[in-house]
Amino acid sequence: MLPEKSLAWGRSRNCIREIAEYGAARKAAIGADKVFDYSLGNPSVPAPPQVEEAIRELLAGEDSTALHGYTPAPGLPSLREAVAEDLRARFGAPVSADGVYVCCGAAAGLVICCRGLLLPGEEALTFAPYFGEYRVFVEGAGCTLNVVPPAADLRPDLAALERSIGEKTKLLIVNTPNNPSGVVLSAEVLTRIGEILRAAERRFGHPIYLVSDEPYRELVYDGTLPPSVLRFYDDAILCYSFSKSLSLPGERIGYLAVSDRMAEKQDVFDALAGAARAVGYINAPSLMQRVVERCLALTSDLSIYRENRDLLYGSLRALGFDCVYPDGAFYLFMKSPEPDAKAFSERAKQFELLLVPSDDFGLGGYVRLAYCVSPDMIRRSLPAFRALAETYGL
Amino acid sequence: MLPEKSLAWGRSRNCIREIAEYGAARKAAIGADKVFDYSLGNPSVPAPPQVEEAIRELLAGEDSTALHGYTPAPGLPSLREAVAEDLRARFGAPVSADGVYVCCGAAAGLVICCRGLLLPGEEALTFAPYFGEYRVFVEGAGCTLNVVPPAADLRPDLAALERSIGEKTKLLIVNTPNNPSGVVLSAEVLTRIGEILRAAERRFGHPIYLVSDEPYRELVYDGTLPPSVLRFYDDAILCYSFSKSLSLPGERIGYLAVSDRMAEKQDVFDALAGAARAVGYINAPSLMQRVVERCLALTSDLSIYRENRDLLYGSLRALGFDCVYPDGAFYLFMKSPEPDAKAFSERAKQFELLLVPSDDFGLGGYVRLAYCVSPDMIRRSLPAFRALAETYGL
Repeated sequence: MLPEKSLAWGRSRNCIREIAEYGAARKAAIGADKVFDYSLGNPSVPAPPQVEEAIRELLAGEDSTALHGYTPAPGLPSLREAVAEDLRARFGAPVSADGVYVCCGAAAGLVICCRGLLLPGEEALTFAPYFGEYRVFVEGAGCTLNVVPPAADLRPDLAALERSIGEKTKLLIVNTPNNPSGVVLSAEVLTRIGEILRAAERRFGHPIYLVSDEPYRELVYDGTLPPSVLRFYDDAILCYSFSKSLSLPGERIGYLAVSDRMAEKQDVFDALAGAARAVGYINAPSLMQRVVERCLALTSDLSIYRENRDLLYGSLRALGFDCVYPDGAFYLFMKSPEPDAKAFSERAKQFELLLVPSDDFGLGGYVRLAYCVSPDMIRRSLPAFRALAETYGL
Repeated sequence: MLPEKSLAWGRSRNCIREIAEYGAARKAAIGADKVFDYSLGNPSVPAPPQVEEAIRELLAGEDSTALHGYTPAPGLPSLREAVAEDLRARFGAPVSADGVYVCCGAAAGLVICCRGLLLPGEEALTFAPYFGEYRVFVEGAGCTLNVVPPAADLRPDLAALERSIGEKTKLLIVNTPNNPSGVVLSAEVLTRIGEILRAAERRFGHPIYLVSDEPYRELVYDGTLPPSVLRFYDDAILCYSFSKSLSLPGERIGYLAVSDRMAEKQDVFDALAGAARAVGYINAPSLMQRVVERCLALTSDLSIYRENRDLLYGSLRALGFDCVYPDGAFYLFMKSPEPDAKAFSERAKQFELLLVPSDDFGLGGYVRLAYCVSPDMIRRSLPAFRALAETYGL
């Protein structure tokens, strides 16, 4: 008598959480320094000091009823204005304040997009590997998520994208930098995605929305910030979270931004606002709205993630493991030396290495390593990786 | 091509917000002291000092990555434990930590209940007058909200409730103290509601859930705290928010609590957790979770609301207006001297009185006055009410 899908989503053990809980128990049993936990994508560097300063200043300077009071549903006007300006200045993205909806992290933005854009029975597409909750968000809207398998190098297969778009396709979700692979979509790839979507819009006679999930936007290690999807396609919406850039994942603060160039921009924004209202996202947490407004272009000290990436990627390659080179995010995607990634993950546990099998990311045969950890832990884990490699004759 | 309901919800002007915006413009034009704004239910008293103290202590004493990091989806274990203990101690409510899900305010709790309990096509019931967003939450889950008209004294009509329950009824939403009427459900009324629902469960052979929306629980003025619905009916869920008791409406922090006595408690909790996941409520804001844990049984200084209630109720009655006596919340529900409450609200504007017509609360012929204002504003508004009364020959 209860909704079956809700029951299933509530009961299903998230594989990442399961391994993390195993890790916590194992650390309690044998000591935290003996367990090499690569399971969780929880930032390991503190928020920049300006976050704490902003909170202290706001407490001292603002009236309590204003500071903690309701804001307009789409967020404080000054924050929406500042976000639009930041997107224009840093990314050349065509965004105005009236297209910005401040919400509880990028996850809320994705939920709002699925429910505000999709009619029941319509289809969303995404590239494998993908963050597993996309399926929950799309199916929660009564729709189907279809997955485009990757090219051999784990980057998007654009010919496969072209073949995958059908009459019912309404949405393409991309994630750049990608969780779990760390792949960043280049300007060339985005140009081609834009061409493919525009051709499909003409063919099918209706908009196909590109929703870009970008919580790892600032976590890139080879040069400049990734190109904004909003520059390459007009029917595009950006979902952003301050979770990773400011190390505030628990605070649930982010935004979505609708392209200024979208033909139906006002209708789309209204539908998104209505969907947000129907699931209760009527104002993002008010203190944090003010904090991020003061810290918009700042980041935590992300240099450690770069150091970690270089150390881990280099070391594992040297041991004979096959890894996807991560342009960004704080994940390394490594090929399992045996076809069954779950079996590989289980064997790794014998060496106290906690790796997440890729099956929940829509692709078998890989494991994800979250390297938002201390460089010291990485160094101490290398003998375990060496021993693990040896069992496979690498 | 966009979901019609989302479009409609995004476009419809909330009547309360519309009047509040008119008020803001009017204040700018003629001076804030000349406008008597009874439109918005935004707490007018600051958060208790312990809220700010808790934030400062947490900033000083906790590691940033822990303080702002992910919490488990249903909330911090210590907070869930503390909430359950508080509900048992202060309300004699049968609740354990494993039945508590911390969420973004009572609105999120209601959304989660609608989506976790209702199958598309099923029906929810509520008593008029009711908070208008209930309709959006229920219809957002693909279901129908049926409204039980009130008795002559605006209290729940229990015979009408009995007649309104049908085969498809799965949920009854109550709101105590009530927005907009201020009515508190007494132990006698809750006993009778429990009897009616149990009889209906037997008759129709399936659970009927009682969801109690209680953001105004601590705002009662004649004696003790209101009785908890969880003591009167087993298939019951409480939705609570710290918005009003701690004056934190913008922070979006509250919880839902499933009765320990519910036969299918674990299934229901799983379905709620799954529904929460599908709309992205995966952990309530982490700093505020820690703050409310330290301030659980505290409230803002609510005495001013009582003073306001007595002053406003007494004065308007003396002027000849017919008002519902508010046991709690910070709203006064007043009968319109003419059948059309919108016309009355418009006429009141001529005297700079901003009153919300009751139509959006599922009932015509009344206006709502939010008395979370300064007593001084109330006193200054009385000549305007007198002049307004005179135009109706009161």
